[in-house]
Amino acid sequence: MSFTIKQAISPTATGYEVIDVYIEGTEIQAIAPDLAPRGTVIDGSRHLLLPGFVNAHTHSPELWQRGAIAPYPLELWLTELYAVSTLTPEHIYLSAIATAVETLLSGGTTVVDHLILLPGQELETIAAAVRGYQAVGIRAFIGPLIYDQHPDAGIPKGDNNWQPGEGPLTTAAILEILEIAVQRFHRPEAGISIMTAPTGLQLCSDQLFRGCVELSDRHNLCRHTHLLETKAQQKLAQEQYGCSAVAHLQNLGFLSSRTSLAHCVWLDDGDIAILAATGSTVVHNPLSNLRLGSGIAPVLKYRAAGVNVTFGCDGSASNDGQDLLEAIKIGTMLHNITDADYRHWLTPREAVEMAALGGARGLNGGDALGTVHIGQQADLVLYDLKTLSLLPKTDPLGLLVMGRPTNAVAHSWVRGEQIIAGGKPTRLELDQLCGDLDRLSLGAIQRPSPDLPAVEAHYRQVMGLPS
Amino acid sequence: MSFTIKQAISPTATGYEVIDVYIEGTEIQAIAPDLAPRGTVIDGSRHLLLPGFVNAHTHSPELWQRGAIAPYPLELWLTELYAVSTLTPEHIYLSAIATAVETLLSGGTTVVDHLILLPGQELETIAAAVRGYQAVGIRAFIGPLIYDQHPDAGIPKGDNNWQPGEGPLTTAAILEILEIAVQRFHRPEAGISIMTAPTGLQLCSDQLFRGCVELSDRHNLCRHTHLLETKAQQKLAQEQYGCSAVAHLQNLGFLSSRTSLAHCVWLDDGDIAILAATGSTVVHNPLSNLRLGSGIAPVLKYRAAGVNVTFGCDGSASNDGQDLLEAIKIGTMLHNITDADYRHWLTPREAVEMAALGGARGLNGGDALGTVHIGQQADLVLYDLKTLSLLPKTDPLGLLVMGRPTNAVAHSWVRGEQIIAGGKPTRLELDQLCGDLDRLSLGAIQRPSPDLPAVEAHYRQVMGLPS
Repeated sequence: MSFTIKQAISPTATGYEVIDVYIEGTEIQAIAPDLAPRGTVIDGSRHLLLPGFVNAHTHSPELWQRGAIAPYPLELWLTELYAVSTLTPEHIYLSAIATAVETLLSGGTTVVDHLILLPGQELETIAAAVRGYQAVGIRAFIGPLIYDQHPDAGIPKGDNNWQPGEGPLTTAAILEILEIAVQRFHRPEAGISIMTAPTGLQLCSDQLFRGCVELSDRHNLCRHTHLLETKAQQKLAQEQYGCSAVAHLQNLGFLSSRTSLAHCVWLDDGDIAILAATGSTVVHNPLSNLRLGSGIAPVLKYRAAGVNVTFGCDGSASNDGQDLLEAIKIGTMLHNITDADYRHWLTPREAVEMAALGGARGLNGGDALGTVHIGQQADLVLYDLKTLSLLPKTDPLGLLVMGRPTNAVAHSWVRGEQIIAGGKPTRLELDQLCGDLDRLSLGAIQRPSPDLPAVEAHYRQVMGLPS
Repeated sequence: MSFTIKQAISPTATGYEVIDVYIEGTEIQAIAPDLAPRGTVIDGSRHLLLPGFVNAHTHSPELWQRGAIAPYPLELWLTELYAVSTLTPEHIYLSAIATAVETLLSGGTTVVDHLILLPGQELETIAAAVRGYQAVGIRAFIGPLIYDQHPDAGIPKGDNNWQPGEGPLTTAAILEILEIAVQRFHRPEAGISIMTAPTGLQLCSDQLFRGCVELSDRHNLCRHTHLLETKAQQKLAQEQYGCSAVAHLQNLGFLSSRTSLAHCVWLDDGDIAILAATGSTVVHNPLSNLRLGSGIAPVLKYRAAGVNVTFGCDGSASNDGQDLLEAIKIGTMLHNITDADYRHWLTPREAVEMAALGGARGLNGGDALGTVHIGQQADLVLYDLKTLSLLPKTDPLGLLVMGRPTNAVAHSWVRGEQIIAGGKPTRLELDQLCGDLDRLSLGAIQRPSPDLPAVEAHYRQVMGLPS
């Protein structure tokens, strides 16, 4: 298939220009003020053309619990999340599809799925998510969420006799699963990549991290993990390592220019220097950081230090949606209250570059993705500037980032294929997806879960909250 | 007209029930598990029924500049906003309509428009906004935005030789305009109310505030003003009064149970006690407070002190949309990072009550609005729980408040009239609205404005920012 997009509005360094873009195969083949129409012709007039954004951190299976967990900090929220164990591979397939569709309809063309695995069905989980993303056509990076400690180990021990149980699988078993997953599913040229993605230092042994580094080096895989999302995790790192979690990750060899790190709320200046020196990427998840009360990631400091920053929605149970434009909006504005000098504040133009090129860089893809240039992968989005939420005519990027775009994505391409047309997915019926989500809903969930009281009592004590 | 809503899902104190609701005239006439259908029958099954929310602070004419102003703090942002002076009453009419439609499509049924007036066409401005709101059918409280000082007076003088010019109109002339506006447009029983709404202490004389109190008492009008939105305003109040702005407002007699106060970011505990004692309402505008870097209003403290709090979008040039559900979401979660004890965090159920009943109370309407009860005004919203963004089936209020509802409002009634049906306004064509907004767009605006440099130099000096 080939497409000629006619007369789209495209940002320049400081303004806008009107261009035609010709797509053939998976690539942008030509850009000029006026191209002869070839292939399918798309009227881009009064549309804003941008490179697709990256939803750089999510957990698609959480979709089944969105809206269902009360306002809790991460450590208690996780207890509620993991108390539900009734998902099947069909759920995984559908939540991947729904995550992809919401991401696409809010300007994304790539999703990074830090994929929660069904116990005992780890490879089936990955297979189901791959099928889901292929069914929609979005570009996907799947990082199976692995850990070799018991989930309760994620809370500092403090002075309590806190005794987490055994982890779910041995380190060796986990690494073997990953190795098979890479062989079976890692097809970057077809839009599906596997990442090595240990949950985080709080639940993973050094051995598991080292195994991930080795696997990542051998197959040139991206690396992904949670990093210092909460104050409790900062406390835990000091308990465990006697140094900052960032220094420990560096010692393990995990930080690199193909490493992206979700959250990064509780880092100090020394940690920031390490991220800059290693070329690591920060994935800012502002909505989940607010919902879980984690704090405000020091994004202006990261940018000032030269650290690459991009945006994620985080999983749908801690946000609780996958509207990437909302994450970009809040992730752009939130920092204005952290620095009195507005000259340091992010502009809409910077936000868009962070969301597109910043996302691509964090996935070791800055050469092929994230800009609109000849020879780049055709991962493109056309926003309809005649919809109510993008009217009246003012500054398109200002409206897109600081406004609340609704039904704004008209057309999207991933790897040269049009997968959104007229605001709808081309490969599936939304009504059927909604019907399937409805049918497979989990039903009544006991809340708070039976597991919560014990964890909560310990959490409150160790975090110095009144009992 | 009368309506029977069948089998809608309605929140109880801790759960949900399924109810039928009969609307006749402007009121809810019956509620029961199973009513005989009369009038137009609405299928409420798999729909969430809530009282309409109040968009409790906005400035509709800002819509014409949404997306257009760079990230600046309020004082510089205002300079950019006021540099544009090409609006006409037709603009005012259309921006009122667009503000009403976006509010309705995000769960609102009432809008509080702190209405920027066209110089020399003050009454025409009010008339145009009234026509706009009547064209849509939303309930509107219009507070003509009045001030008798020069806009530059809103910045602290500091040690500079800062000499704001004259105000636009005399105090007497302003009060005369208001008096006429009340006579001509104040029709609460028809859904249009006039409020007395001085811009704020920073631009208004004591005499103007006293005049507003007198007018408000004479006609039983609600009172509305901006209060301590920025640190600069806190500094200015100390410069002007030698006491806090809140104490000064109390001395002027402005605070009361029919007074709502936009922003309230920079209040201390003493100020909060005054708000509680006077029964005043805080209107929290989280998105504009982030966009302008104003800070986080201490909403959890207000609630703990018994102060009524509700939500607003603020004007479209400082947000830059009128999605009330977004303001509620962020205004609910934002405070989680201000208090480590999650037991103090707002729940979705509390947020909905703040947005509906809290909004009604702030407008002296808590008896007739803000809940679903027999005898209440039928200002109601049905949300479609089968749309993608509200699936799968979990907790409807959790999804509505913590998710990102899109195209979620199916039907709305205001004063018993259905003004949204099937997700669309009943009284007007969206396409025509969009076409009109497009046609009347302001075109290229010089940014930064010629006025900015002088104001910026003074602002930076007085706020201690490097020059």
